[in-house]
Amino acid sequence: MLPVDGARFLSDLHTLRGFGASGVGKGVVRPAYSDADIAARDWLAGRMRAAGLEPVFDPMGSLFGLAEGRSLLVGSHSDSQPEGGWLDGALGVIAGLEIARAAREAGGPPVSCVSFQDEEGRFGVTTGSAAWSGALPRAQVDGLTDPAGVTLAQARGAMGDRLGDWVDPARFAGFLEMHIEQGPVLDGTGEAVGVVEAIVGIRDMVITYEGQQNHAGTTPMALRKDAFQGLSAFNTLLNDRLRNIVTPATVWTIGHVSLHPNAHSIVPGRVSFSMQWRDGEVDRLDRMEAVIRETAQEVAAARGMTVGFGPMLGIAPVAMDAGLRAALREAAEAEAPGNWREMPSGALHDASNMARLMPSAMLFVPSIGGISHDFAEDMAEADLVTGLKVLAGAVARLAG
Amino acid sequence: MLPVDGARFLSDLHTLRGFGASGVGKGVVRPAYSDADIAARDWLAGRMRAAGLEPVFDPMGSLFGLAEGRSLLVGSHSDSQPEGGWLDGALGVIAGLEIARAAREAGGPPVSCVSFQDEEGRFGVTTGSAAWSGALPRAQVDGLTDPAGVTLAQARGAMGDRLGDWVDPARFAGFLEMHIEQGPVLDGTGEAVGVVEAIVGIRDMVITYEGQQNHAGTTPMALRKDAFQGLSAFNTLLNDRLRNIVTPATVWTIGHVSLHPNAHSIVPGRVSFSMQWRDGEVDRLDRMEAVIRETAQEVAAARGMTVGFGPMLGIAPVAMDAGLRAALREAAEAEAPGNWREMPSGALHDASNMARLMPSAMLFVPSIGGISHDFAEDMAEADLVTGLKVLAGAVARLAG
Repeated sequence: MLPVDGARFLSDLHTLRGFGASGVGKGVVRPAYSDADIAARDWLAGRMRAAGLEPVFDPMGSLFGLAEGRSLLVGSHSDSQPEGGWLDGALGVIAGLEIARAAREAGGPPVSCVSFQDEEGRFGVTTGSAAWSGALPRAQVDGLTDPAGVTLAQARGAMGDRLGDWVDPARFAGFLEMHIEQGPVLDGTGEAVGVVEAIVGIRDMVITYEGQQNHAGTTPMALRKDAFQGLSAFNTLLNDRLRNIVTPATVWTIGHVSLHPNAHSIVPGRVSFSMQWRDGEVDRLDRMEAVIRETAQEVAAARGMTVGFGPMLGIAPVAMDAGLRAALREAAEAEAPGNWREMPSGALHDASNMARLMPSAMLFVPSIGGISHDFAEDMAEADLVTGLKVLAGAVARLAG
Repeated sequence: MLPVDGARFLSDLHTLRGFGASGVGKGVVRPAYSDADIAARDWLAGRMRAAGLEPVFDPMGSLFGLAEGRSLLVGSHSDSQPEGGWLDGALGVIAGLEIARAAREAGGPPVSCVSFQDEEGRFGVTTGSAAWSGALPRAQVDGLTDPAGVTLAQARGAMGDRLGDWVDPARFAGFLEMHIEQGPVLDGTGEAVGVVEAIVGIRDMVITYEGQQNHAGTTPMALRKDAFQGLSAFNTLLNDRLRNIVTPATVWTIGHVSLHPNAHSIVPGRVSFSMQWRDGEVDRLDRMEAVIRETAQEVAAARGMTVGFGPMLGIAPVAMDAGLRAALREAAEAEAPGNWREMPSGALHDASNMARLMPSAMLFVPSIGGISHDFAEDMAEADLVTGLKVLAGAVARLAG
């Protein structure tokens, strides 16, 4: 076992929250490259140095606390949403710091820690780890702009001569990330931790039905080609058919609907809507896509309408490394016997990019009410420490 | 029989189309109080005078062609939609002119004709006949504004000293209006005319479901309170339940949908949508309303959501006069044996207001493809003349 110090870990976590502390409860406003973000990284570099780790900023501003020689890498991100919680990312960063520190104090194994930059996507999606991993071509990085039109080149310029060269991924044997679940599953079951099996893939496309726009008073029901009725029939059939394909962790969502002309007294002639589905298995994503397309076409044909499919947004699922997962499972069972589960991550994380560079895995801890990307995000402190111990247990097993 | 002249009727109809002729096909741009509208009314007043009728503009600019003594009134409106067809309203006006003219040539019975002003609602809904009937309080009329901010006082001022006093409704024994169907029923069945039983009542309210907004990746299906899914379930159940209540002429429409926050990756937490239904019977409108409210509440309760109902827009159905309808039925059977039907009007007409003042009825003729409020609106000329003959036959029967 690595003798992690729960009190020191919580103290550092509360100190980090002080950078950008804002809003109600334990809210934080610490977006990437803001003054609060840079100040937090400077403080973090000092804590790394005090622990005997070498603090290194890469060209993106991601901050590594390097152990000597080849090591595991443990961490997450310390930037926040424009209005975020105190644990999203920060929890994984301070857990990495505490484990690297405790490991050094214990005389080994070597553990490095990291806080990636701009995971929350001021300039894209998981920007810092994406650039390091090559998922985002480095040549494109500086041209990215935030919603206010600031370029990433300008933003990272604020970090001045802190910025160094890229860190060589070959010095790391693997990556572990602890993260608040950002969903209601563990809070609902009362389980202590979730070992992530895969970061789900996402498919997303816009579907459009064209029926016939008509007067809502003079057009009998039997003669209508009502695009909204087409959408509703599609949705009902689809929900029924997907039941045979999905797992309890699969999700699908119609989150955006645009009716035309969208008036009370006009039978809608056209509807465009978003169809998004997520699962950890490519094969299941494929089978769902086939059912979605078939059902959409069948409903159109039955109602004398046409259907169109927009371009497909596809993000492939990322399986977590089997060896790292096994270590997390064993540590979870040791720390919380019978009170943990395996589960997918429905959201993207830095681990998605790290899996391109090295064996990677993730551990989830329960978020109260499943609340995320909100000042109200929170966790019980006992759950925080349990998570830390499971993660430390996995590190000890991997080094053992 | 009244010896109406089909060629003269068609010639006048084409001449009227020349005022504001525009767009493709037989399109017309002749909105109320426009130069084209006023020029058309001046021409129409001349045709009335030539036929031995006394042209009188009322304070709204509605133009009557008065026969001596107590008479039937036959007509419709000659203003058009901003982009309208050549027959919507105009057909009924020229039919009234031809029947009044033919009756006068035949030595009786006395028949007056009318073109109401602003039926298409530049300033409201059926504004001219509504003001005459008292459905729209006359004191409010001048304060009404069009979408550009022009007041009705300014607009009718353009008609100058043409405008006279209100016509006494007591001089009319009843009102008959022929109108293009504005729907696909007669065109679909191939029937020559439709005798209107009632102008349907309309109920319209906004329904809002409040569920819970959530992350579309991390929220399992079983834990969602998805407002769009609530709407879809409501719609499906409602369609099923209304089948036991409605007639083939009843219609109901969800024409407007507003999802919140309406984003691909967010489970929608709220939806507001329009629920509109129309029928000729108050009792059926009531029973539909009860089913709509019960179903909406049942779906909300089953899904852990709340439902809210906005204010109800209610327009009562207007039954057509039994005696006038009987005359139209007999004339239809004589002119087109077995090839006509009784049907409701799903749209409002000047006859809705006239029913407040005198016995009123309507005759529908088939519109090609059911197209209305569009440059492409059209009818076969043979159908136009058949409609004229049925209307004239009814007038002859009523006078006989």
